[in-house]
Amino acid sequence: MSAEQQAAGRVVVYTVKVEFGDCDPARIVWFPNFFRWIDAASRHFFVECGVPPWHETEKTMGVIGTPLVDTHAKFIKTASYGDVLQIHTRIAEWRGKSFVQRYAVKRGDDAIMECDEVRIFAGRREGDPTGIRALAIPEEIRALCS
Amino acid sequence: MSAEQQAAGRVVVYTVKVEFGDCDPARIVWFPNFFRWIDAASRHFFVECGVPPWHETEKTMGVIGTPLVDTHAKFIKTASYGDVLQIHTRIAEWRGKSFVQRYAVKRGDDAIMECDEVRIFAGRREGDPTGIRALAIPEEIRALCS
Amino acid sequence: MSAEQQAAGRVVVYTVKVEFGDCDPARIVWFPNFFRWIDAASRHFFVECGVPPWHETEKTMGVIGTPLVDTHAKFIKTASYGDVLQIHTRIAEWRGKSFVQRYAVKRGDDAIMECDEVRIFAGRREGDPTGIRALAIPEEIRALCS
Amino acid sequence: MSAEQQAAGRVVVYTVKVEFGDCDPARIVWFPNFFRWIDAASRHFFVECGVPPWHETEKTMGVIGTPLVDTHAKFIKTASYGDVLQIHTRIAEWRGKSFVQRYAVKRGDDAIMECDEVRIFAGRREGDPTGIRALAIPEEIRALCS
Repeated sequence: MSAEQQAAGRVVVYTVKVEFGDCDPARIVWFPNFFRWIDAASRHFFVECGVPPWHETEKTMGVIGTPLVDTHAKFIKTASYGDVLQIHTRIAEWRGKSFVQRYAVKRGDDAIMECDEVRIFAGRREGDPTGIRALAIPEEIRALCS
Repeated sequence: MSAEQQAAGRVVVYTVKVEFGDCDPARIVWFPNFFRWIDAASRHFFVECGVPPWHETEKTMGVIGTPLVDTHAKFIKTASYGDVLQIHTRIAEWRGKSFVQRYAVKRGDDAIMECDEVRIFAGRREGDPTGIRALAIPEEIRALCS
Repeated sequence: MSAEQQAAGRVVVYTVKVEFGDCDPARIVWFPNFFRWIDAASRHFFVECGVPPWHETEKTMGVIGTPLVDTHAKFIKTASYGDVLQIHTRIAEWRGKSFVQRYAVKRGDDAIMECDEVRIFAGRREGDPTGIRALAIPEEIRALCS
Repeated sequence: MSAEQQAAGRVVVYTVKVEFGDCDPARIVWFPNFFRWIDAASRHFFVECGVPPWHETEKTMGVIGTPLVDTHAKFIKTASYGDVLQIHTRIAEWRGKSFVQRYAVKRGDDAIMECDEVRIFAGRREGDPTGIRALAIPEEIRALCS
């Protein structure tokens, strides 16, 4: 294992089958669907690492989810229906109150799309039923994902 | 106003602009998107009739929403991006614990799609946080929609 | 094999993992997503039966796809994220120029949704680049699906 | 008008009504839906500037569309159903063979989301039915959008 991989921690793969209805009149994946799959891959990553569901972590550590604050994606090759895509997901960086989740979408060896997201672990804001705030990265979750 | 229209009660129109990404590789609207618009037209109907939002009706009459139990749709003509569709919505029938919501999707004079849904007014089931049950049609809502 | 099953022909199962983003603020699957999965199950059925892709059948038998003309669905139990659904698909009836495709969506033994669709095998209308017409059921496809 | 606005050229506003089904179990817009709206705003921008539809520009200047190669978005405030959003769209930069399309998604004065995309004007690759290539920015389109 290289130093880069060690730093990156665990990699989890999420598989997607591209369907006819995911494609637009140009016969290629309509790009918002990539973000649909990326969001599924994000949650799948935490589930596979053994992080309990958010309705449980809310009680134990006050974490209600991992909202997105920033995303940056590159579209490298097109995909179409019938394709099977693998989304390789990992945590690229842990910061004080946020983290970078990194995705490489591949079709076999072909790079299709790459995406870096900044997400936070959100907790409720006291006295404000819909407000949220960024929590310090929970050590327990960080350990499970490394 | 004809007898038929009188029986049918109020008609509310919801307008949809068909976008490129709503279409599939055959260059026509991918059919699940029609149900996306139908659901928006359903809620729009109640809002336009003056029915308060469900988080308010939950407190005043125990109604938390109008889940769908049955839907039947006919696809008459295709539509594509650039088209503007009008969804004419009304309550076709009030039953004891359910109602039929009827939709006519048109492009000008062209009939594009027709849909009849059976929905209920749902309330919470006591002692079961996720269970729901069909309530008797609230007279106040029926009056607003007629 | 029962008489009913014999008549029904081949059954193909398509598996769906319900994701967070498939659910609405009531925490249950937003119903248009069921039609997204049903459409994928329809195409999956023909692929698994050995029917060539539509761009090939267009050349060999003039079939460009199986557009939907009518759909009728019952919503029996709700589903939410984390659930794995099996969509059991078969051809319930062959008619002269249309067929009934039948779907049973299950979570283990629980019936979640049932749907009957009428679809046609479409061919191009001569001299009209966007027009389509219903073809007689191709015997070759019927044999593959039985 | 400031120097910055002059440089930016024309601004076109696309309006979105957030629907119940656009929201997730956290009761806020599920983020892939923002990209659905951004893509509609992109095409709406060119339509409003008087650029002919892509099936016409394909014949006159070889342009078949504006595929996305890179996108970067910041999520600033959440939105929910009932909200009406305005997407302010402009071309922030013209490059040799690509351009930056910039979006500011607002709810009244509130900034909700911001997005910068790199797109190209695509033409067909000779002798390759599905291949595309980046064309030099067509002067006629640039003039219409300025």
